[in-house]
Amino acid sequence: MKLATIRTPEGTRAARLTDDGYAELDFPDVGALLAAGDPATAAGGAVHPLRGTALAPVVPHPGKVLCVGLNYRNHILEMGRDLPEYPTLFAKFADALIGPRDDIALAPESSAVDWEAELTVVVGKTVRRASEQEAEQAIAGFTVMNDVTMRDWQFRTKEWLQGKTFEGTTPLGPVLVTPDELPGGLRPSLSMTCAVNGEIVQKADTSDLVFGPVDLVRYASTIITLRPGDIIATGTPGGVGHARKPPRYLAEGDTVVTEIAGIGRLENTAKAG
Amino acid sequence: MKLATIRTPEGTRAARLTDDGYAELDFPDVGALLAAGDPATAAGGAVHPLRGTALAPVVPHPGKVLCVGLNYRNHILEMGRDLPEYPTLFAKFADALIGPRDDIALAPESSAVDWEAELTVVVGKTVRRASEQEAEQAIAGFTVMNDVTMRDWQFRTKEWLQGKTFEGTTPLGPVLVTPDELPGGLRPSLSMTCAVNGEIVQKADTSDLVFGPVDLVRYASTIITLRPGDIIATGTPGGVGHARKPPRYLAEGDTVVTEIAGIGRLENTAKAG
Repeated sequence: MKLATIRTPEGTRAARLTDDGYAELDFPDVGALLAAGDPATAAGGAVHPLRGTALAPVVPHPGKVLCVGLNYRNHILEMGRDLPEYPTLFAKFADALIGPRDDIALAPESSAVDWEAELTVVVGKTVRRASEQEAEQAIAGFTVMNDVTMRDWQFRTKEWLQGKTFEGTTPLGPVLVTPDELPGGLRPSLSMTCAVNGEIVQKADTSDLVFGPVDLVRYASTIITLRPGDIIATGTPGGVGHARKPPRYLAEGDTVVTEIAGIGRLENTAKAG
Repeated sequence: MKLATIRTPEGTRAARLTDDGYAELDFPDVGALLAAGDPATAAGGAVHPLRGTALAPVVPHPGKVLCVGLNYRNHILEMGRDLPEYPTLFAKFADALIGPRDDIALAPESSAVDWEAELTVVVGKTVRRASEQEAEQAIAGFTVMNDVTMRDWQFRTKEWLQGKTFEGTTPLGPVLVTPDELPGGLRPSLSMTCAVNGEIVQKADTSDLVFGPVDLVRYASTIITLRPGDIIATGTPGGVGHARKPPRYLAEGDTVVTEIAGIGRLENTAKAG
């Protein structure tokens, strides 16, 4: 099953993606749908066409946006680092999120806006101190995020938050895909790419994660209750602009296409904002 | 004006603290009251007694909990560090918050639970890229937080979040006090103390902040829109348990009293949870 949050003249609506289009469900967005329980029971409504339907972030108002740093094995090893013992966790605020085709806001205060393609877990159940099995059952599905980062602000201090949560920078979507539809299921093995102006800048397989989706749900739920609609962005592989020599950052009009096979693609343009 | 969020059999309610008690206001909590506009216009309802009325976190569900590290001048200088050019910002999630008299949950996964008394800004207006004047107007008032921290988890990785957001650890309250009632107003000069089992372990004046409340609202609003009910904990002075030789951490049954003159006190007991 594929779920989206669509924009209609009456506000956002949860929808199920079918071959015919986006079938409206009786919830304002996918977060509310997940909070209500098993999404498979939701009844279908009006169908919106595949082309031309505006999409919101698949979960527009997550209670928590958890992000993971340094989590792709090949990238860590090629940097000459040891594999980490614990996941590095940081946060974004929901106001950073944009829809899968919205413009990425290039804040005039930053001159180092970078890309980070990431497989993203959407939580579907309330869990604390989840067992392996509870963590598996708590994963509603997967989506795509580009964890767009202001590198200059990220490294102003030791804590990354301020470079990670600029308003209107972080596309999330286009859809939530349930694990049963993905190769590898809860440990998906999917090709992920990020392209800037058509050039592939990141390419990895999501099976290369050091801490996989179930591990991350277990770890985070040790700390705090995870709730339906919470999201966990699992980290980015090599190929970010900041690591290039010389570094390369997003400029006005650059297009960023972030794609995970089997889930979908984010298509965003960088624009002053 | 002093505002609180009280617990009633029907759920939480916003209330105004008067000499007679907590007068109910027509909002479910102080966050909802602030979101509705000028709190001075809210009408009073049933009055609950000063003693025995249960208090929730003064804002139970803030959209953002921003925290500041390394922000007390004397403490930075006594540590031999330079004053910072930029504030260090990190996040907590709202599920970490507890009421001003609730127990601090000592998670069995941590053996290094520490205290951090902090003056805390409550945002009252929606602002982005606030001017000095807009930032001043965006401050609804001040409250008290103890930014309780799992030091072992804080330092597992370079990002502090995982040690900062354990469930049910962070008292917030007891009341929001509007700036007009405080010496120093928007740049309050107030005596702040933290006592563990009756021993004063932290003592500072809130005027010693490197980045004051108005600075912090301006800085954070450069990054992202601040909204009514968002909170900014402004950092802690010297005297934390982790810096002692040997270190001292909270144990079962320890009482933690965090007080800011003119605002009020948090009285919490550490208990396994």
